[in-house]
Amino acid sequence: MAFKPSIKTQALETPALIIEMDALESNIRMMSEFFKDKKAKLRPHFKTHKSPEIARMQVAAGAKGLTCAKLGEAEVLVGAGIKDILIANQIVDKGKLNRLAGLARFAKMGVCADNADNIADLSKAAQYYGSTLHVLVEINVGMERCGVNTKEEVKYLAKLINSSDGLVFEGFQAYAGQLSHNLDKPERVSGVGDAVAKVGAIKKYLEDDGIAVAQISGAGTGTYNITGDNTIWTEIQAGSYVFMDTDYEQLGLDFMKSLTVLATVIHKRPGAAITDAGQKSCCITVGPPAIAGYPGLFATLSEEHGKIIDAEDLLEYQQRVEYLPSHCCTTVNLHDRYYCVRDGALEAVWNIAGRGKTQ
Amino acid sequence: MAFKPSIKTQALETPALIIEMDALESNIRMMSEFFKDKKAKLRPHFKTHKSPEIARMQVAAGAKGLTCAKLGEAEVLVGAGIKDILIANQIVDKGKLNRLAGLARFAKMGVCADNADNIADLSKAAQYYGSTLHVLVEINVGMERCGVNTKEEVKYLAKLINSSDGLVFEGFQAYAGQLSHNLDKPERVSGVGDAVAKVGAIKKYLEDDGIAVAQISGAGTGTYNITGDNTIWTEIQAGSYVFMDTDYEQLGLDFMKSLTVLATVIHKRPGAAITDAGQKSCCITVGPPAIAGYPGLFATLSEEHGKIIDAEDLLEYQQRVEYLPSHCCTTVNLHDRYYCVRDGALEAVWNIAGRGKTQ
Repeated sequence: MAFKPSIKTQALETPALIIEMDALESNIRMMSEFFKDKKAKLRPHFKTHKSPEIARMQVAAGAKGLTCAKLGEAEVLVGAGIKDILIANQIVDKGKLNRLAGLARFAKMGVCADNADNIADLSKAAQYYGSTLHVLVEINVGMERCGVNTKEEVKYLAKLINSSDGLVFEGFQAYAGQLSHNLDKPERVSGVGDAVAKVGAIKKYLEDDGIAVAQISGAGTGTYNITGDNTIWTEIQAGSYVFMDTDYEQLGLDFMKSLTVLATVIHKRPGAAITDAGQKSCCITVGPPAIAGYPGLFATLSEEHGKIIDAEDLLEYQQRVEYLPSHCCTTVNLHDRYYCVRDGALEAVWNIAGRGKTQ
Repeated sequence: MAFKPSIKTQALETPALIIEMDALESNIRMMSEFFKDKKAKLRPHFKTHKSPEIARMQVAAGAKGLTCAKLGEAEVLVGAGIKDILIANQIVDKGKLNRLAGLARFAKMGVCADNADNIADLSKAAQYYGSTLHVLVEINVGMERCGVNTKEEVKYLAKLINSSDGLVFEGFQAYAGQLSHNLDKPERVSGVGDAVAKVGAIKKYLEDDGIAVAQISGAGTGTYNITGDNTIWTEIQAGSYVFMDTDYEQLGLDFMKSLTVLATVIHKRPGAAITDAGQKSCCITVGPPAIAGYPGLFATLSEEHGKIIDAEDLLEYQQRVEYLPSHCCTTVNLHDRYYCVRDGALEAVWNIAGRGKTQ
């Protein structure tokens, strides 16, 4: 049976990034319910949706604040009225240090550090602006990206932060992103266990020396219900749960897919349909998008086109199809706006204010 | 020896998309020289750079007009004063037909067609706006995307166009993109030969019936010097030659790489450097970016970070590095502006006005 897009989405020009609002709201509600009786709080990641509207919905549903990846994203969040922001990353450019410390006059700003020189720079910038930066020492828990490894390094940096004017030692950033996409739940559980052991030992080492560790921040959509289930984490940085994608879907979580890329069939011939949505509308680094309502169909994307092998000729010329992206975050970053749809009616168009804010 | 970025690029915040202006201008000059004594004219593709400034430089250097992939790009080009534009694609949405015909009041607008219903729609829209659309019948020359295959289909559509009010049959769109990235030059040459044979036979079939074929448009950077060397093509749609990338570099063309993504090393440890430029700043679908000035080094990109295996510890903490992208067009589409550098000095910041204009 052919997939029937609604009258409203049929009228939209394509490619268009669509949010199914009922699904989005359900996802936000479900995550909020999960954290109601947990020690950890939700600090959802802005890098996924980059939308001030969704950020405010998350805070209204109980999120303690937002996480973001980039200083430019934090500036958008402050402009949107968010008061508690963590940049889950190092800020090392001289110009960015100024922007960060300046921004901290308007919101509680957290930032990660793993380097003594950087801590000295953060302190200078905070003093210049008369603001306070809440600094988390990043611990490497398997991403092999940023972060330090030993308890001695962590303690050294924590003490340095606490003795630096304008800085407060807030705790740890510990993000085991490599676990978030592991399809094997027992492996996710045991991986979180390993991280708890490593981070917990470091926490104890600092506390034994009288250094308070207020926050341990990290985790994502793939481990929120393990890491966030009364372990030592105090903040969970899940992002993709608002939209999900075909990659996260494989984990068997209860969130609904709420994000699609609407495309038009601009050419149809026996066995194939060509659409107007290519790699500039949908990210394919994790795999090609599936086609909503047509199990087994997917689109191979070149730069400007999608090619759907349509052996049974289910699709028609000029028909709208909806891609289900394999990676929501990088797909969102290609678009300027969301078309928000409920029961087939377009109810809002939202500017993706954080798009492209990589600096 | 460590790569030394200039004082000016050192001062830019990162990630930043950099154009080396001398290299860009040299590429535009070289391509212009090639076409000086050729039957074919250059109609460079806007989808690569999406910049009104570069489009105007190309026209000033002799390009007959611009090619683009999307109607939204054509609107940017009209706004930039470009008077002769080909959308090398089908426009089938009802809303888009109106925009296209409206736009044709301000510039000569070419568009592709491969469907009789679409030709009827184009005619209705052009009549409504009192404008003229120049329609090219797309012939499939191996991309297996849009386009028709037989001489009979082409003639039928050409006649239909010529008999439709508001439309002019302009000729053929024949883009053999599959050849453009073929590393084997004899294969590129013989592939172009096959396309010349196919398209030439169709041209003769129409001309024998008194149907003039004014333009045959197509080809890219990888075949400009084969297809454009006095074959039957009259317009060459090369795009990437302005920037080049590590993928096109393998073809051994004489153009210079003029585009980099400037990044900062935000974490350094023995054997590895982590940067602040990930997949949201540099497209990796064709491969990871190389690092300028450091043969053998490249960056594996996650969403927000680059990881460089730096076994000899050539890189330093806080150092700027420049990525050489594997695919320039999709990398440009991630950025809002170009930082234009000459002799190490920042000489302009250009808005990438066509970015995200997928609709």
